[in-house]
Amino acid sequence: MDSSKVKVVVDAMGGDYAPLNVIKGAFEALKLKSKQLELILVGNENKIIEELKRNNIDKNLFSIIDAPDTITMHDSATSAIKSKQNSSIVVGINLLKEKKADAFISAGNTGAVMTAATLILGRLKGISRPTIGATLPSQKGSVLLVDAGANVECKPNFLYEFAIMSSIFVENTQNIKNPSIGLLSIGEEKSKGNNLILETNALMRNSNLNFVGNVEGSDIFGGKCDVVICDGYTGNILLKFAEGFLPLLKNTIRNYSSKSIFHKLWSGLIAITLKKLLKKYDYQEHGGVPLLGVNGTVIIGHGKSTPKAIKNMIFAGVEMYKKDINKKIEDKIIENQNQKLK
Amino acid sequence: MDSSKVKVVVDAMGGDYAPLNVIKGAFEALKLKSKQLELILVGNENKIIEELKRNNIDKNLFSIIDAPDTITMHDSATSAIKSKQNSSIVVGINLLKEKKADAFISAGNTGAVMTAATLILGRLKGISRPTIGATLPSQKGSVLLVDAGANVECKPNFLYEFAIMSSIFVENTQNIKNPSIGLLSIGEEKSKGNNLILETNALMRNSNLNFVGNVEGSDIFGGKCDVVICDGYTGNILLKFAEGFLPLLKNTIRNYSSKSIFHKLWSGLIAITLKKLLKKYDYQEHGGVPLLGVNGTVIIGHGKSTPKAIKNMIFAGVEMYKKDINKKIEDKIIENQNQKLK
Repeated sequence: MDSSKVKVVVDAMGGDYAPLNVIKGAFEALKLKSKQLELILVGNENKIIEELKRNNIDKNLFSIIDAPDTITMHDSATSAIKSKQNSSIVVGINLLKEKKADAFISAGNTGAVMTAATLILGRLKGISRPTIGATLPSQKGSVLLVDAGANVECKPNFLYEFAIMSSIFVENTQNIKNPSIGLLSIGEEKSKGNNLILETNALMRNSNLNFVGNVEGSDIFGGKCDVVICDGYTGNILLKFAEGFLPLLKNTIRNYSSKSIFHKLWSGLIAITLKKLLKKYDYQEHGGVPLLGVNGTVIIGHGKSTPKAIKNMIFAGVEMYKKDINKKIEDKIIENQNQKLK
Repeated sequence: MDSSKVKVVVDAMGGDYAPLNVIKGAFEALKLKSKQLELILVGNENKIIEELKRNNIDKNLFSIIDAPDTITMHDSATSAIKSKQNSSIVVGINLLKEKKADAFISAGNTGAVMTAATLILGRLKGISRPTIGATLPSQKGSVLLVDAGANVECKPNFLYEFAIMSSIFVENTQNIKNPSIGLLSIGEEKSKGNNLILETNALMRNSNLNFVGNVEGSDIFGGKCDVVICDGYTGNILLKFAEGFLPLLKNTIRNYSSKSIFHKLWSGLIAITLKKLLKKYDYQEHGGVPLLGVNGTVIIGHGKSTPKAIKNMIFAGVEMYKKDINKKIEDKIIENQNQKLK
């Protein structure tokens, strides 16, 4: 192993189109950055080698580690982690734990990756709960919504820690100095919101975060801030709600088009243009999100990840590792604690 | 007063374009249903008469009751109710209390209407908290989202009562027999959700509601059920989030159109067609939502209500009153209590 290279463990069995899409994406990443990158494919070795052969990819480009157990999208996270110790997720994250690799990427069962990473790697100092965010388009470009569903029941300090982690992450990966943080509520005034929000607002106001205060639902797409913080129940519902909008729009266009040939032609053209316009909102372009708060670099992707998304996830893992984001998060937590003691 | 007519009190000062839009809408309603309808305009009498004159509307078509105090959109609900006893909202709702009118409609300060109605009229038997819903488009046609922001902090029995009220309301106004009710959560399984949802799911499962179980964010537009129940924090954020989508889409189209003359033309045409298509999602078409759970018929509208929306709100008030929805809600609550005692 070349120690100057970043070693990324790739969950070859993760996602709906694994191992095909994963292998293709890994190959793409390697072609672009072979000098900086070393890839370890973890999963069912026979299937991986078979798929590499079928796609005429030299197996010697990768390290391959056999992990025959399979955790499916439907497995319960906690029990799968215990009963399937030889799964790509558990074996892969153990490589991080043992310092044999620098980052782990997976498009597999999100809950299982999160549970395994938390149990095996542990949490960063000062972090109560690891979290996952989601990148959404906004009038300003993009916005990171955190938590996207990892923590359904939250306490004020959880949300506060999510904000610190998100701030560091966005500052280091999007090149935004001191990103603006909003707390999702039903009105801008600090008196507006449920009990969780009222208490969290007070915590954030007294921090050294660039806190813009409460923001409303319309401010997410509106681009009022770089990061929007909420509990995972709200975050998950918002993300799935947004996913339902385009199908509804398509359905409306379809109904409109059934009226006449002219309508059909016209709405067909609109649908094509919309698709093109909306491409930038495609999660496949973003290539995964970090699992923030665990003691290691873990990137999680959508189950339907394309090779391009896998490639981008690998690059995201490299960037997060190289920029030492976890160390910076721990430093920021300590800095905020010290500020409060003053 | 003709006792066979439904007497509707109209808050002439409610909304961003009051009294103009309110008066125009009231006049429209009266033109269409003069035999069934008697309208009482409440507000600053001078302004009302002036506006009627300016629009060539005969003032003798209406009863006019002077209420010179003004509650603005920015007033705090509770203190405004106390300090502005001669406001259109307080005076109007008192007419309901004194049985001098059958329904009250307002496009004014929602919080103030809700607080005044709850304090003056009281709650229906068996109802802990009045609620407000919002109608959204769905693949199926439409869906009622309840609570839309009235109750930010909820208990399981609140949500359960919202479901009973919504079921009766939709059954009687949309002609849907035994409407299907979904509980908004992060997964369909009854084990998915925060503590509030887990407890509410159990209550609903054991009721005689047509409960389809937990539904996800994508099921709202997806049309999986007729009513979606959630707490008011979540409901408010979802509604405002949805409002932000079209501006984002417009912005995307605008950026696209700056590329060339052809793009400009093309995206202009798309924007026009989209506007037409999306008209059915316009809140102005729906004409307000009922305040469910107070002992009286109260319809609340958007601050930007058009004359058409005001007209529809008046008709909604008439329908709700005529169908005796509040009595039916009380009966259904008792029916569910008896079922549990069995």
